[in-house]
Amino acid sequence: MVKKLYKFSHIALSTSSKDIRVLSIATQIYEILTHAGIKVSFDESLERLQAKLKVKTKSDKYIANNGELLIAIGGDGTMLNCSRKYGSRGIPVLGINLGKVGFLTDISPEEITSRLLEVIKGDYIEDKRSFLEASVEGKKDTYLALNEVVIHSGAIAQLIDFDLSIDSKFVYRQKADGLIISSPSGSTAYSLSGGGPIVLPNIPVMTLLPMFPHSLLNTSPLIVDDKSKIRIEMIGKKTKAVLSMDSHNSIKLKKGDIVNITAGKSHLTLIHPPGHDFFEACRNKLGWSAALTKN
Amino acid sequence: MVKKLYKFSHIALSTSSKDIRVLSIATQIYEILTHAGIKVSFDESLERLQAKLKVKTKSDKYIANNGELLIAIGGDGTMLNCSRKYGSRGIPVLGINLGKVGFLTDISPEEITSRLLEVIKGDYIEDKRSFLEASVEGKKDTYLALNEVVIHSGAIAQLIDFDLSIDSKFVYRQKADGLIISSPSGSTAYSLSGGGPIVLPNIPVMTLLPMFPHSLLNTSPLIVDDKSKIRIEMIGKKTKAVLSMDSHNSIKLKKGDIVNITAGKSHLTLIHPPGHDFFEACRNKLGWSAALTKN
Amino acid sequence: MVKKLYKFSHIALSTSSKDIRVLSIATQIYEILTHAGIKVSFDESLERLQAKLKVKTKSDKYIANNGELLIAIGGDGTMLNCSRKYGSRGIPVLGINLGKVGFLTDISPEEITSRLLEVIKGDYIEDKRSFLEASVEGKKDTYLALNEVVIHSGAIAQLIDFDLSIDSKFVYRQKADGLIISSPSGSTAYSLSGGGPIVLPNIPVMTLLPMFPHSLLNTSPLIVDDKSKIRIEMIGKKTKAVLSMDSHNSIKLKKGDIVNITAGKSHLTLIHPPGHDFFEACRNKLGWSAALTKN
Amino acid sequence: MVKKLYKFSHIALSTSSKDIRVLSIATQIYEILTHAGIKVSFDESLERLQAKLKVKTKSDKYIANNGELLIAIGGDGTMLNCSRKYGSRGIPVLGINLGKVGFLTDISPEEITSRLLEVIKGDYIEDKRSFLEASVEGKKDTYLALNEVVIHSGAIAQLIDFDLSIDSKFVYRQKADGLIISSPSGSTAYSLSGGGPIVLPNIPVMTLLPMFPHSLLNTSPLIVDDKSKIRIEMIGKKTKAVLSMDSHNSIKLKKGDIVNITAGKSHLTLIHPPGHDFFEACRNKLGWSAALTKN
Repeated sequence: MVKKLYKFSHIALSTSSKDIRVLSIATQIYEILTHAGIKVSFDESLERLQAKLKVKTKSDKYIANNGELLIAIGGDGTMLNCSRKYGSRGIPVLGINLGKVGFLTDISPEEITSRLLEVIKGDYIEDKRSFLEASVEGKKDTYLALNEVVIHSGAIAQLIDFDLSIDSKFVYRQKADGLIISSPSGSTAYSLSGGGPIVLPNIPVMTLLPMFPHSLLNTSPLIVDDKSKIRIEMIGKKTKAVLSMDSHNSIKLKKGDIVNITAGKSHLTLIHPPGHDFFEACRNKLGWSAALTKN
Repeated sequence: MVKKLYKFSHIALSTSSKDIRVLSIATQIYEILTHAGIKVSFDESLERLQAKLKVKTKSDKYIANNGELLIAIGGDGTMLNCSRKYGSRGIPVLGINLGKVGFLTDISPEEITSRLLEVIKGDYIEDKRSFLEASVEGKKDTYLALNEVVIHSGAIAQLIDFDLSIDSKFVYRQKADGLIISSPSGSTAYSLSGGGPIVLPNIPVMTLLPMFPHSLLNTSPLIVDDKSKIRIEMIGKKTKAVLSMDSHNSIKLKKGDIVNITAGKSHLTLIHPPGHDFFEACRNKLGWSAALTKN
Repeated sequence: MVKKLYKFSHIALSTSSKDIRVLSIATQIYEILTHAGIKVSFDESLERLQAKLKVKTKSDKYIANNGELLIAIGGDGTMLNCSRKYGSRGIPVLGINLGKVGFLTDISPEEITSRLLEVIKGDYIEDKRSFLEASVEGKKDTYLALNEVVIHSGAIAQLIDFDLSIDSKFVYRQKADGLIISSPSGSTAYSLSGGGPIVLPNIPVMTLLPMFPHSLLNTSPLIVDDKSKIRIEMIGKKTKAVLSMDSHNSIKLKKGDIVNITAGKSHLTLIHPPGHDFFEACRNKLGWSAALTKN
Repeated sequence: MVKKLYKFSHIALSTSSKDIRVLSIATQIYEILTHAGIKVSFDESLERLQAKLKVKTKSDKYIANNGELLIAIGGDGTMLNCSRKYGSRGIPVLGINLGKVGFLTDISPEEITSRLLEVIKGDYIEDKRSFLEASVEGKKDTYLALNEVVIHSGAIAQLIDFDLSIDSKFVYRQKADGLIISSPSGSTAYSLSGGGPIVLPNIPVMTLLPMFPHSLLNTSPLIVDDKSKIRIEMIGKKTKAVLSMDSHNSIKLKKGDIVNITAGKSHLTLIHPPGHDFFEACRNKLGWSAALTKN
């Protein structure tokens, strides 16, 4: 009997980045993996590089159905995109970091070879993250966000009026530029810039953070259960608002629209190289002070 | 020799409000003032009411050249508008408050008669407020704001990159949703919703407040001299931004644009009824706790 | 077979308040309950009233061993005290609110009779809250807090230096006036004054909030799992600090001391009258705006 | 006629630091200055080093009466101390930075010789800073602070109750852990840790910042005129509080005590080497991002 050498037999690559390093990194990964006997597919995002890569790209659907691991090359934008597109369908995602901040991406271009060999041998950490799901009542689409759902007036210093309910209980009527609903993954992203708390990954909560609230009273972030149903009803005579997922889609809302948001139904499996430590990422990326400690 | 009975011989009315009470309030003011022998002019904003009012409206230019006092009927939006249009040309402005918050407007509809009689007799408080002036280098327009100038990405969670200098000294490079530059008048408006400090009126400073700054380091509001020259250079490859004055105008900015902001060159004279107290307004409008104190 | 009329056969009363209303309220409750055939005990906190009450007080130990429900008469201080003393031993606690804020106490003096009759008939809501447990390594005492554990320099603008670890992972080295570790119950108390988030009750998390942190970088509140082990090591040459539970005990700490904090091992059962709603409490007590909504 | 070679003929040294580098730095400065023919005096703070220094120390009073420039060797604590002791009597103060942050101290130990030569030749920047003055009504002492005056409960999570008035106008009744009143110099110190704004030096304002305010309403920092008279009356049944200047003195306050605070009567002249730039200090010390800019 032949022992299976590697954990994955089919790995896909994707990017949203226009960084010129993508070509060489994709080529490098292609060589490492094919040399290891692993099938490699490129999704349509690499189409523009296909002549240079001498590899034919596959449809996103093919990748979603056949890939066993998705390697996202780029910054957090690429990761968010790949997470929603492939991660939500059960394919684990690993990030090669071309960006600057990178709470989701782990591997820097310099360490691709060594890190990738560890990962394909099965030496990695699985990190389950919840998606947020948003929908507008009476419409059939459901939108996914890994980091945050934002409801916003779509303009500067233009207030929206809304009623917030959680699990069918009325919370408050609010007048604000907007409202951020973030997952733990999103707590180190946009929500953090607005003064929101850092929620450790895997904690089953959502954070609600009002943006430039008109009243000084209900300004505190709210930490609510992951399984709660958040309901936001757009009120006010001339409400125009926008519903945004990971700063990506942009759905127009009008007076009377009701947005429902929940989390925890679908999950992303992030793949980290061994030794990954969330607090180390915070120290590196947020500048937390380190200490010469043996702990 | 006849003693001059009233402080003003020509008073103008203006509004930006669509509140149905405007007609009756304008009529009431018209009657009080004409009865006192004071000439009353309505500006073009009251045109839609002119049939009912049986008063012909005058051009804004005529009002600006001839009015001695401008009564603004509406909320803070009306006040901001009248202040920029007439106040900046030296006409004192008095506000009748139809809105809810009202840091600039003083007189509620119920007390118009008594308060107005005090004011026309010269029994009032003059309150000088600075305007902010913004311009884009290489363009000839100068824009006025009473409350705040905002430079913003024009979208949710879209960062703008800019270099900030004060009096030709480089301050910092910032990546944020935007930047609010507010006058003391504006310190109880949009800036307050973003966590900015309350600056007492008449203090010759501007407040700079980053909106959702990407870095956690330069997030503090900056208090700078009123006579300082603030210079913001739009950098970053794909910068699209909007320059907004009192949430009113909306000037598009592009990469390389340099915005200059100063204050203190032109002033508004706000007219308050006797007894006006900024701290009382704060207690009423911001909910500060009052006390049974003799002070 | 006789149907048991009431849910409780032995109810105890306690207070930490010096409010003069305590005597009449205790008398009123005594009469309602004894009339219903329920045994009533007063703990030692009511000793000073025993001559007037014509009731002998019982030892705290007796109450802890025999009481089936504890009614705490007073403000949040009384509730915190009764919760630690009796609630931690499994006796459910119901609060009569003599204070002003009252997130833990529910029943106002005016509605005692009607509310109490509902509760003894079994018509109430049980609300489980976690206690925080703090201990100093090498010492045998364990301290309970319902709201928050605070480590503080014990003086104004005196920094303490500490290393924070969570579940044996180093988080950061911090220099600050102090650190607040709060339960969800405490999230509407001291932590809220410091800008911390509001955590809905029953969510299994703790909030860590630095007080006047020296660095501008690690200032964000941290939301961590309830079952995590928080470890704070006092470093720095001349560290003097104080460990405080619910602003009650005050344990001196010195250089090298290690404080361990966990939650979720012991619980309090709060008893609320039917219809209790956390968000309604927030609207009433924090001034959140209500709305004429059918939700 | 002989041209005066140096700007100062008598320079004094002082320290509050126990850093072992003080001896060598004091010796180095002594040699540079005496070599230049400038008289050097050591104040009593250097007494413990006098055997090693082979220089007799002078009384603080002698220094205050005769010194033309005071060189403070140490961190911000030394600067605050020397500023209150000598700066308030009109002696300009220059700081040698042994500490870490150092907004007030400018010269690092490595550059003493070159920087000092510039300064004694008159090549320096004068930077006037206001002192805050605090006094308790009915008591004759007046206390000086360069950075901040703090009124505090003196304990964790213990509220003080006070009425705040500005220029004889009642502002609000507050319940909080304390209140920070800071000068522009203090705006980068303790006040910044509490979320206060950064006030550029020389701007004639004071910042009032409540510490852990009980109400969520009056939490905003207040920017008030430098010449205003701030009056804080301690109310509440069992008020115990502490009045602290630059975290140095510690005056006990009791119920009914009235604290008056003003600024701007006495000034400190800080001496900076040529090229000193406040924003550069912010970039270095607060971590503001720099940019490759020609501005």
